[in-house]
Amino acid sequence: MAGSVSNPFNTDLDRNPANFQPLTPLTFLERAAAVMPEHVAIIHGAQRISYAEFYRRSRQLASALVSEGIERGDTVSVLLPNIPPMLEAHHGVPMSGAVLHAINTRLDAQTIAFQLDHAGARILIVDRAFIPLAEAALALAEVAPLFIVYDDPEYAGSETGELPSVDYSAFIARGNADFAWLMPEDEWDAISLSYTSGTTGDPKGVVSHHRGAYLLAQGNALIANLPRHAVYLWTLPMFHCNGWAFPWTMAVVFGTHVCLREVRAEPIWQALAEHKVTHLCGAPPVMSLLVSAAPQVQRALPQAVEFFTAAAPPPERVLAEMETAGFNITHLYGLTETYGPAVVNEWQAEWDGLGQEQRTHFKARQGVRYLPLEALDVMDPETMRSVPHDGETLGEVMFRGNVVMKGYFRNRRATEEAFAGGWFHSGDLGVIHPDGYLQLKDRSKDIIISGGENISSIEIEDALYKHPAVAVVAVVAMPDEKWGETPCAFIELVPGHTVTNEELTQHCRDYLAGYKIPRQFVFEAIPRTGTGKIQKNKLRERINP
Amino acid sequence: MAGSVSNPFNTDLDRNPANFQPLTPLTFLERAAAVMPEHVAIIHGAQRISYAEFYRRSRQLASALVSEGIERGDTVSVLLPNIPPMLEAHHGVPMSGAVLHAINTRLDAQTIAFQLDHAGARILIVDRAFIPLAEAALALAEVAPLFIVYDDPEYAGSETGELPSVDYSAFIARGNADFAWLMPEDEWDAISLSYTSGTTGDPKGVVSHHRGAYLLAQGNALIANLPRHAVYLWTLPMFHCNGWAFPWTMAVVFGTHVCLREVRAEPIWQALAEHKVTHLCGAPPVMSLLVSAAPQVQRALPQAVEFFTAAAPPPERVLAEMETAGFNITHLYGLTETYGPAVVNEWQAEWDGLGQEQRTHFKARQGVRYLPLEALDVMDPETMRSVPHDGETLGEVMFRGNVVMKGYFRNRRATEEAFAGGWFHSGDLGVIHPDGYLQLKDRSKDIIISGGENISSIEIEDALYKHPAVAVVAVVAMPDEKWGETPCAFIELVPGHTVTNEELTQHCRDYLAGYKIPRQFVFEAIPRTGTGKIQKNKLRERINP
Repeated sequence: MAGSVSNPFNTDLDRNPANFQPLTPLTFLERAAAVMPEHVAIIHGAQRISYAEFYRRSRQLASALVSEGIERGDTVSVLLPNIPPMLEAHHGVPMSGAVLHAINTRLDAQTIAFQLDHAGARILIVDRAFIPLAEAALALAEVAPLFIVYDDPEYAGSETGELPSVDYSAFIARGNADFAWLMPEDEWDAISLSYTSGTTGDPKGVVSHHRGAYLLAQGNALIANLPRHAVYLWTLPMFHCNGWAFPWTMAVVFGTHVCLREVRAEPIWQALAEHKVTHLCGAPPVMSLLVSAAPQVQRALPQAVEFFTAAAPPPERVLAEMETAGFNITHLYGLTETYGPAVVNEWQAEWDGLGQEQRTHFKARQGVRYLPLEALDVMDPETMRSVPHDGETLGEVMFRGNVVMKGYFRNRRATEEAFAGGWFHSGDLGVIHPDGYLQLKDRSKDIIISGGENISSIEIEDALYKHPAVAVVAVVAMPDEKWGETPCAFIELVPGHTVTNEELTQHCRDYLAGYKIPRQFVFEAIPRTGTGKIQKNKLRERINP
Repeated sequence: MAGSVSNPFNTDLDRNPANFQPLTPLTFLERAAAVMPEHVAIIHGAQRISYAEFYRRSRQLASALVSEGIERGDTVSVLLPNIPPMLEAHHGVPMSGAVLHAINTRLDAQTIAFQLDHAGARILIVDRAFIPLAEAALALAEVAPLFIVYDDPEYAGSETGELPSVDYSAFIARGNADFAWLMPEDEWDAISLSYTSGTTGDPKGVVSHHRGAYLLAQGNALIANLPRHAVYLWTLPMFHCNGWAFPWTMAVVFGTHVCLREVRAEPIWQALAEHKVTHLCGAPPVMSLLVSAAPQVQRALPQAVEFFTAAAPPPERVLAEMETAGFNITHLYGLTETYGPAVVNEWQAEWDGLGQEQRTHFKARQGVRYLPLEALDVMDPETMRSVPHDGETLGEVMFRGNVVMKGYFRNRRATEEAFAGGWFHSGDLGVIHPDGYLQLKDRSKDIIISGGENISSIEIEDALYKHPAVAVVAVVAMPDEKWGETPCAFIELVPGHTVTNEELTQHCRDYLAGYKIPRQFVFEAIPRTGTGKIQKNKLRERINP
């Protein structure tokens, strides 16, 4: 009777303002402020900011930005630690119609200058601690954004600048706290611009939209099973993929943000205990920091704490120690291009009964698609065919869904390459196990090709992590006349331990085929990005300058 | 620099299959089947259906429907209790591109025939218990849908039909369990058609879409704070607003549906205890049923049980008894036009410290907007201006957001009226309290106008519910020569109690102004719809036939 053409369910049943509104995470804060106005939204040192105040200050910021001439599609850049104005920026900037560009505070001035120019920054909001860095970047940049400085009462330093600047508090005081903030015209409108930290090549500007931020913010709350009034501690930098959308997530459950200027063991343990933190996210080094803290720094926690980690799988030892200390670890995986987490290691009840080693094995896998991701697969990027679910066949990890970026800013070619064949190509290599769980094997550029065989650097690293003297290890390819490439292992030792090349080679024989054993071990500090990611490109440069 | 026209964030950053997929709740089942294939999705009597099996059977149903010639935009009608094929229909029907029309099983044949014709039903799936009702309706209807009968092993009756029919199990056996099910072409595509139970006038067909069903299904999980593997008991009929989207919600958290053919105290208490039910929804009569059950039927429950109720505010007495029995009650409010719940009584921590009476007072209010609803207001429908938040000024409750229907099927005029001024007009009257919480006062047609004064029938009912002899009360307007209208109260007594008109009048004086006291009390059974809603239109007919 009815086909698509004459579908009666599409007749006189159109969108209108009553039944269609753009999805945006900004409505979460609006709702929280209306429903729980007096609940504490933000804790920072001695400061307590209620939801009513958080919403007022965000609207004031938006209003001040609009008064400054900011229009839809303009860029507002920020160079801030995890402090209240960073949370305000995540709301107030998009409430003005502008796009938030949060800059990694550990970058060099040159890279920041590149980003400011590429982003076309109109405004730059900076914490006083970063005045020297910001001024060095502005000296190199072509753009001349309005320079706004925030003076955090929790910061003891005394940097002053050379350039004219506006005080953040004075700036937002110009704004109207009742400002009728701008809804996006379309949920596809950009909400943020985040540059990939770029272990190789020029940084690319990842553009995220309101729709994806709304869906990921809710997805986080569901995946993390956040209860009402959850308490979230900020160890993950908010400049990193917008803190995986958690700046927006917490309002969904009327939760509390606990800010932290610096990721050090003492304030983290203190916050966990004093504010009864229930959830936090962080890279594996944060875990190491926690469990290696002096006994007098560590606290007994009455509450259960959920810890979400990403990047490299955490070493077995650290996982075990974290569990003993009362943390429940969930392993996530994603990229800036997927707004942060897009894969979660969903725990199967039957794994509870396994021994520590086997549980760690399952915990180290990346897992299955996040709730708001529509599809996850591992494919041969040439044929775009899925690999068999055998846990062995290597392919490229591909994503498809509403939490995949709009594309790369002002970079049509990179965008087209990334989306070739209707999937987002991650550049990561992995396998799918028979139970459907993804396990990463390597970045495609980190694979070592020796005598025509592919060697996974992660497999070698896993073997070396089992040695008690090894604290951190990174394996890269080393040119070899006979084999093309062979593995080279960079190693940081556990303090107080020593080990010889021979002992490590012997150790590797227990776990690896002969051709996978590193031909060289280098004992020195391993370079990392601002977010703790190991920079294998720099290691390769050391070998082959 | 950049305005909307030249917005650089809209250049070369278009939608493509990698970064844009239609939102549909069908992906939740797909994901659950992939991640937790062996987890029990459905319990029904002795049956246990895993997520893998649930997904396979839903695809089989979709495949069989497509083989039968079903196309996008066709209607598949079902007349089923809360049993596994009803859950399969919520997935398999939209997976075929068709629209699910779930019929209230307590309707008369005439009304069902109207619905089948109006919906253009191509297929009708019926539980054996409803064969006589279905055949009576088909005899009156103009359409001649394929008639499919399901034989539930949990049903002991022996109805047989006159009309030729196909066995449900044989029908889906024709389908392919690996069928590549149809994603909606657009998230705005219809997923279901539900006729309002119609306390007055012709039933209207409410059309819901995939986008709204996705958002409400997730919103339920967030509002109810469903943990992973929550266990949900089906006391709310799935034919009622698609069970408030819970047929789709449970897969979000890999939860378990516990089916129930009939809402009786004994099987409910049994299921609560045996399956460790964590959540259920139901109208206030379900609560009365639970707490008035014989002591040997009631069970001590080790687990906390969350009970979500809607429709009329539950009487104080019943609320108190439910709390004592270990249930935590949350009051919701919504309409078929809002997919079910669109308002939730978010509980403020400070209310915990109040006495029972005050807590009940707060609990009986309707509350604040549901998470996926963008706006809720009470307005003067003439001027479309918001009423002051004074808890006194009456206005019409209005909704705006993504969980508001597409409109009424084949009824452009009703759709336009409902959406006048860019808001959905609920027809319910309410006030907003100073804390922003909505409280319903009446349906606009239930208001009593006496001597030019508006009298809320709910206010009178509340007063009468405080009398220990009153079990159920419904107040309607009675024509009066002098005053135009006066209140008339229909009353069902608590078994074993008696009361006189004089006693009730005296009781009312303690709570109500004189002009609000009913002039007449009628002691007789009160008519209800299939979903437990009191039919005031029938009471008005009794007074004024």
